[in-house]
Amino acid sequence: MIGEDKPREECGLFGAFNHPDSAKMCYFGLYALQHRGQESAGIAVADGGAIDEYKGMGLVPDVFDMDILEGLNGSSSVGHVRYSTTGSSVVANAQPLVVRHRNRAYAVAHNGNLVNAHHVKAELEDAGSIFQTTMDSEVFLHLFVRSLHLGFEEALKASVARLKGAFSMVVLTSRGELIGIKDPHGFRPLCLGKLNGSWVLASETCALDLVQAEFVRELDPGEIVIISRDGVKSIRTNTPNRRAFCIFEFIYFARPDSTFFGHNVYLTRKAHGRRLAEEAPVDADLVMPFPDSGTYAALGYSEASGIPFETGMIRNHYVGRTFIQPTQSMRDFGVRVKLNPIKELLKGKDIIIIEDSIIRGTTVKTRVKALRELGVKRVHLRVSGPAHRFPCHYGIDFSTKGELIAARMNVAELRDHLGLDSLYYLSLEGLLASTGIDNPVDHFCKACFDGCYPVQFDDNLSKHCMEVRRTP
Amino acid sequence: MIGEDKPREECGLFGAFNHPDSAKMCYFGLYALQHRGQESAGIAVADGGAIDEYKGMGLVPDVFDMDILEGLNGSSSVGHVRYSTTGSSVVANAQPLVVRHRNRAYAVAHNGNLVNAHHVKAELEDAGSIFQTTMDSEVFLHLFVRSLHLGFEEALKASVARLKGAFSMVVLTSRGELIGIKDPHGFRPLCLGKLNGSWVLASETCALDLVQAEFVRELDPGEIVIISRDGVKSIRTNTPNRRAFCIFEFIYFARPDSTFFGHNVYLTRKAHGRRLAEEAPVDADLVMPFPDSGTYAALGYSEASGIPFETGMIRNHYVGRTFIQPTQSMRDFGVRVKLNPIKELLKGKDIIIIEDSIIRGTTVKTRVKALRELGVKRVHLRVSGPAHRFPCHYGIDFSTKGELIAARMNVAELRDHLGLDSLYYLSLEGLLASTGIDNPVDHFCKACFDGCYPVQFDDNLSKHCMEVRRTP
Amino acid sequence: MIGEDKPREECGLFGAFNHPDSAKMCYFGLYALQHRGQESAGIAVADGGAIDEYKGMGLVPDVFDMDILEGLNGSSSVGHVRYSTTGSSVVANAQPLVVRHRNRAYAVAHNGNLVNAHHVKAELEDAGSIFQTTMDSEVFLHLFVRSLHLGFEEALKASVARLKGAFSMVVLTSRGELIGIKDPHGFRPLCLGKLNGSWVLASETCALDLVQAEFVRELDPGEIVIISRDGVKSIRTNTPNRRAFCIFEFIYFARPDSTFFGHNVYLTRKAHGRRLAEEAPVDADLVMPFPDSGTYAALGYSEASGIPFETGMIRNHYVGRTFIQPTQSMRDFGVRVKLNPIKELLKGKDIIIIEDSIIRGTTVKTRVKALRELGVKRVHLRVSGPAHRFPCHYGIDFSTKGELIAARMNVAELRDHLGLDSLYYLSLEGLLASTGIDNPVDHFCKACFDGCYPVQFDDNLSKHCMEVRRTP
Amino acid sequence: MIGEDKPREECGLFGAFNHPDSAKMCYFGLYALQHRGQESAGIAVADGGAIDEYKGMGLVPDVFDMDILEGLNGSSSVGHVRYSTTGSSVVANAQPLVVRHRNRAYAVAHNGNLVNAHHVKAELEDAGSIFQTTMDSEVFLHLFVRSLHLGFEEALKASVARLKGAFSMVVLTSRGELIGIKDPHGFRPLCLGKLNGSWVLASETCALDLVQAEFVRELDPGEIVIISRDGVKSIRTNTPNRRAFCIFEFIYFARPDSTFFGHNVYLTRKAHGRRLAEEAPVDADLVMPFPDSGTYAALGYSEASGIPFETGMIRNHYVGRTFIQPTQSMRDFGVRVKLNPIKELLKGKDIIIIEDSIIRGTTVKTRVKALRELGVKRVHLRVSGPAHRFPCHYGIDFSTKGELIAARMNVAELRDHLGLDSLYYLSLEGLLASTGIDNPVDHFCKACFDGCYPVQFDDNLSKHCMEVRRTP
Repeated sequence: MIGEDKPREECGLFGAFNHPDSAKMCYFGLYALQHRGQESAGIAVADGGAIDEYKGMGLVPDVFDMDILEGLNGSSSVGHVRYSTTGSSVVANAQPLVVRHRNRAYAVAHNGNLVNAHHVKAELEDAGSIFQTTMDSEVFLHLFVRSLHLGFEEALKASVARLKGAFSMVVLTSRGELIGIKDPHGFRPLCLGKLNGSWVLASETCALDLVQAEFVRELDPGEIVIISRDGVKSIRTNTPNRRAFCIFEFIYFARPDSTFFGHNVYLTRKAHGRRLAEEAPVDADLVMPFPDSGTYAALGYSEASGIPFETGMIRNHYVGRTFIQPTQSMRDFGVRVKLNPIKELLKGKDIIIIEDSIIRGTTVKTRVKALRELGVKRVHLRVSGPAHRFPCHYGIDFSTKGELIAARMNVAELRDHLGLDSLYYLSLEGLLASTGIDNPVDHFCKACFDGCYPVQFDDNLSKHCMEVRRTP
Repeated sequence: MIGEDKPREECGLFGAFNHPDSAKMCYFGLYALQHRGQESAGIAVADGGAIDEYKGMGLVPDVFDMDILEGLNGSSSVGHVRYSTTGSSVVANAQPLVVRHRNRAYAVAHNGNLVNAHHVKAELEDAGSIFQTTMDSEVFLHLFVRSLHLGFEEALKASVARLKGAFSMVVLTSRGELIGIKDPHGFRPLCLGKLNGSWVLASETCALDLVQAEFVRELDPGEIVIISRDGVKSIRTNTPNRRAFCIFEFIYFARPDSTFFGHNVYLTRKAHGRRLAEEAPVDADLVMPFPDSGTYAALGYSEASGIPFETGMIRNHYVGRTFIQPTQSMRDFGVRVKLNPIKELLKGKDIIIIEDSIIRGTTVKTRVKALRELGVKRVHLRVSGPAHRFPCHYGIDFSTKGELIAARMNVAELRDHLGLDSLYYLSLEGLLASTGIDNPVDHFCKACFDGCYPVQFDDNLSKHCMEVRRTP
Repeated sequence: MIGEDKPREECGLFGAFNHPDSAKMCYFGLYALQHRGQESAGIAVADGGAIDEYKGMGLVPDVFDMDILEGLNGSSSVGHVRYSTTGSSVVANAQPLVVRHRNRAYAVAHNGNLVNAHHVKAELEDAGSIFQTTMDSEVFLHLFVRSLHLGFEEALKASVARLKGAFSMVVLTSRGELIGIKDPHGFRPLCLGKLNGSWVLASETCALDLVQAEFVRELDPGEIVIISRDGVKSIRTNTPNRRAFCIFEFIYFARPDSTFFGHNVYLTRKAHGRRLAEEAPVDADLVMPFPDSGTYAALGYSEASGIPFETGMIRNHYVGRTFIQPTQSMRDFGVRVKLNPIKELLKGKDIIIIEDSIIRGTTVKTRVKALRELGVKRVHLRVSGPAHRFPCHYGIDFSTKGELIAARMNVAELRDHLGLDSLYYLSLEGLLASTGIDNPVDHFCKACFDGCYPVQFDDNLSKHCMEVRRTP
Repeated sequence: MIGEDKPREECGLFGAFNHPDSAKMCYFGLYALQHRGQESAGIAVADGGAIDEYKGMGLVPDVFDMDILEGLNGSSSVGHVRYSTTGSSVVANAQPLVVRHRNRAYAVAHNGNLVNAHHVKAELEDAGSIFQTTMDSEVFLHLFVRSLHLGFEEALKASVARLKGAFSMVVLTSRGELIGIKDPHGFRPLCLGKLNGSWVLASETCALDLVQAEFVRELDPGEIVIISRDGVKSIRTNTPNRRAFCIFEFIYFARPDSTFFGHNVYLTRKAHGRRLAEEAPVDADLVMPFPDSGTYAALGYSEASGIPFETGMIRNHYVGRTFIQPTQSMRDFGVRVKLNPIKELLKGKDIIIIEDSIIRGTTVKTRVKALRELGVKRVHLRVSGPAHRFPCHYGIDFSTKGELIAARMNVAELRDHLGLDSLYYLSLEGLLASTGIDNPVDHFCKACFDGCYPVQFDDNLSKHCMEVRRTP
């Protein structure tokens, strides 16, 4: 269950080629990627020259049942999970997006955000195209079918070349080909796996683990992989001289059992916690996370500091979307609905809380207040990443800059605002160093921390970034 | 989410008297008690001389929405959650059970099991009564209306006196009275709370915490509490000279933030873990629970032994009831659907697993196998309670004796069966001592461990118990 | 589709004994009886010593599907359709009512109304019985199980003897016996049919026709028929010296293809129409019914008078329950939603409308107004039965006396109120004579026309009837 | 409820301009047109520069409720009902079809069939267009947006000019304009009405009657009507020198209370019946329709012949789609499920049945057989139109030629096949003459009778038609 003050991932992708139970493979792949999107789920299969699809609102096991999966025949498939929002949560925006053109059909699943989608769409409409959706992936498809006179591969290359921003995509054709596409900066993850004679594409390695596929490699930035009866063909396009993998995958998004660049997420988060203990030690009776955030960093902090780890707030496992709000006649029992602190454990203690990020700060503030009311003596907050001060333009639903509390307050102000005894953010250097990756500065997008956006999205961008660098 | 190889609690109870938002109070109370039953939920309110009710299959937030709650007017209410089974899971068996008789109505919510229900029911049917359900609580209601010529209180006493077994009950009358009843051995919990001018009855203190009611006291064994406009009246009935509170509430059932006899469950479970470390030390790289079982005992074990605590298997938070089974064409990826072990953490290590109980052993066996395949070196299992060798007749859905694996194998056989390097159960003495309660042997029912059943349920009972004592 | 100003029948009954597809037989039987009740439908089957049932709100084909029917195994069955109301339309009141008692179960389907249900119920509650429903049939079942010490047949007789009012019932036991019961006056229809080795009980012969069963005979007033492996056993109870079959079955309720006392309903209604033409001739261009009422009487009127028959108002066949009301901003287009008059046919004409009854008169008034607006010159209304001036106490949901417009106005007043040029009701003598039955006055209940109630329902009854007789 | 052996109409259209309750107007309009399509219903409204829509499977009152209608704000609207089939019955094919292009949106509702849709679509796909549906109306929209550079009106004219076949369309723009379009032959009906300051477009006048709009005129063949704040503008395009209005609208499709060319459908059908009595008199006891087909022609036949009209088969009004099939163990009670003949009326009689058409003949054959089994002496069938021997290419779902029984048998063969004593089809001359329209041969498409197709749909067309003429 996603925390209420956490950024939301855009999506999770999965594709399977040449598997007798392709739709079920997809189901399990999406199931392992459910943390990347809880709003909707969809699977499309190529069957006998056509594409069948099924999409619905809700979690993967709620959307699909055995009858549905057994109705999705065909040995190639592509699936998608989408993030959870409240407003425009409609099945029309669920993916994969399937279109039919001439005697072919195409299904696209997309993770990321195109910064030039609006301009390209306007251009295509002027030329007489009619769009069915507001999804970025449809822009890609219109470019593609208008380039088909160049041939299939050239059409792929030509249409990808028109896109700017962050995008990992999996495309299925009605002939059963499965195509993986990653943008030139490699913002979003996408990896290739193998399972007997089948091939698999997935956002994270945890999906490969579940279906027991063998990890082959991550797609390179700018790479197009075409999987067909002829094998796996890789097309490389021009790329910039540095990657920009979203560092927040390591801090928060990815499942702890996934691995990127050969580094496991669980162990990396523990390393962040150890580094945090070194950068900001403090004397206390116990260290604990707020569930379900910061657990692994808290274990690392405990390990490095020798302060006991406890799970001092008990989560109600049954919290759902349809929860009723307490009414006026009841005192505000706020945080307790989801979390109940163990009074006997915490009363009169000095405690360290480990969080992985603070967006608006409202949840932290409420929880700290609840701990104070219980009789906790001192509350120290340690955050296992730098402060979020810049919005993301590449597909993460961070609050706008105005809502990012760290963009409006310095650390001392924020400490007081949150009612803490002390507050410390892991340094950007500490974060990068503790990933354990060589030359980490050339691997990551960290724009949300420092405002340096790898892909220009408007004219004021570079100025903006320089200004930030001057005043870190 | 309840583990698949865990015993199931019968139910959770909540009642509210004289509260302007009584139904919503009940909703929140049930919400906090959701772990005691996920099959169905129901709320009944006394409104203007009648009782309105709403019941449904599923979790509390799925059954109720704002419209439903706002339709349940009245200042007194009673609610119930029921455990999750697969078979006869029908709304007809949801509680509270409401009946109308003459110009009155009564709603009953029940936790426990009557051992003489069958005999009393046959007697009543011979006298011309027609039963609507197969619920024990209906037996109580028929006894009650047939005793009403004695007057209200005497009818309560006379009908309770006919019941044998384990029962905590909350009864609501259409006049708005709220009645709490606990059997003479006090098998199941029930406590009284206070909130401004309102009174609350609840299975566990965590429900009082959520609605911010003040804990007053637990009901005594054999006590009947009648809450009305005239205040709280207590009626004591004859009781045996010892209690028989279900010790499994401390080990597994209750929420860690609840308290019984003044002892917090979280801290008690940690004490079990510390005692376990003393009774059965072993050298290892890390200690970890299988989620979500044994976490607190594992923290205690780590604390007493100095061996690092880790959460080495990652739970998929989105596992639901409608999950699809993998098919033949996929290799059995068994345990991974729900849990993925962190290979980078566990490979080549000696590890200690802490469990709170083993019923059929199937889940443990599968998980240990998965750890072995990953390359874990040695696996030591420590269980934070004695071996389950006897079925429960007081309302816990343990497997029958034949399915209790510890009833069929000794510890060495079970260790080999589960594929472990070592296996140790906490001793009954160690369990009782580490509860921290004075003279614990007079407080608990531990029949599932030693076969000594406090209430006779058939003729072979006492023999059975003695035999057990001879061969511990 | 039932007219909006028509009385509502209570129910339709069907039972089948010893048929391999008993539940499906019941389905088709209820289907043929759907006009007797559209609110709910239910079927119960005796299977292996237990009774399974399925009930739901709505029409027979909406409540049941193939899966449900195939799940209802057993060679004996009983089914029920219930009339359509708006208010307390809940599945809890659907029939058959099934209860379990000792090792047996019983299912009852009931058509009619007990005038002493309230008194008997109070007596039973004082003796400790708990009622599940507010249905009359439950009173019968409580009486029955409390008499079982007398033996099965005597218990049936003893409990039927306690009932007063109108009742036809079909009872199914878990041993597979099928029992038909008709009250001593024979208010409601119930007949016996035969189909190879199977026996069938049904409210109307049209249900026998559909399942191709052979009509054997109608049950006699006061008869109990027990169908078992031992054959068909008939028990006669004391009966009054005259029948009181509801004459409105001939006029309106029954399907035109049904037959009572050897007289077909369609032909009888035509005979009413012919008699009406004799009693109240008038010169006109055409004669027509309001759909769907009075069609057959209109054919008879046309035949006797030589005036052409037309269907001058076209019904919209798709009118459903969920129909939206026009709003203020639209002119009231009232009657046209359901019926559109053929302007080209009716404009400037003198027309005769045939109706079978007028209850509140609102619909007639609106329709006549619509005809006037269209330009119809003269409108003569002829009703194929006497005026309804008295409520029914035997199970027909006539409006209360206050709402019966003929109880408040004489014929001249009503003619003016409805905006007619002339109005005539068939005389009671004419109605009885045109049924073609010998000595008809001893066969029918006609209390709604003359206030002579065959079964006393309160102390003022006889007075009331006499008064009526004085002023016909 | 549509007969099972009847051709199916394609659709019904309704549009409202400048009405405060535009969506509700549309609802009632569609409601009156429900007989033209029971598969799906949809309404789109122009609101504040956007178009909102709601579509669903099923009947109008099932698809829409008050909440939905009140959510559809805007003073201009367009609605559509679609015919009922079994196979591809999916909401994706429901209309109106709404697309967004640049800053505008367009909704189209379509009745008819384009014979060149396939070719135009292929051409557009080659130019890079992506189609969302397989509906003809989408072809029109793609043509339209690709012509928009010509300006709005010219784009309309240019795109309509590309279409070949039968089409009546209503288009709504997001600016609130309402456009009516009729193909150059005027195959399908579409008329204009007026209601205070509002304008209405509808397939039939019965829809105008219901919303109490005043009939203004039918659209002319080849006319485009643009209704906007500037009033009603008519654009005439080139048309052939003869109309081709579907004559089957008079015989079967249209509601009897509708009027085309000033001729009422009910009276026209009676005229067909009178002509039939003249062309094919026969001595008999009674004349009757099979419900619900041929009723009005039967009244005409009775009037001209003096033979009494009866409704000798009683329809079960509650037959629904979910009806269960009888099983093997029951004798085939075939026709009786829907219709029960009145034995007492029909036995031993000579009867005339009036039908309006015979497609496959299966239903007629079964019904005649049922009458024979009942004991009817002679059965004469008279059909109120010529024999159907040719499929329709303009939007009517006639069976293919192979399934049209009259294409395979001559009248004598068919008489024997159906088990009749005599069979007669109204002559084409008689049909045309009895419409009462001057020079009828220039007004109608009667291709299903004579194979003369007004619009060429393939190269063998004219040959085909001539051949037919040689062998009538």
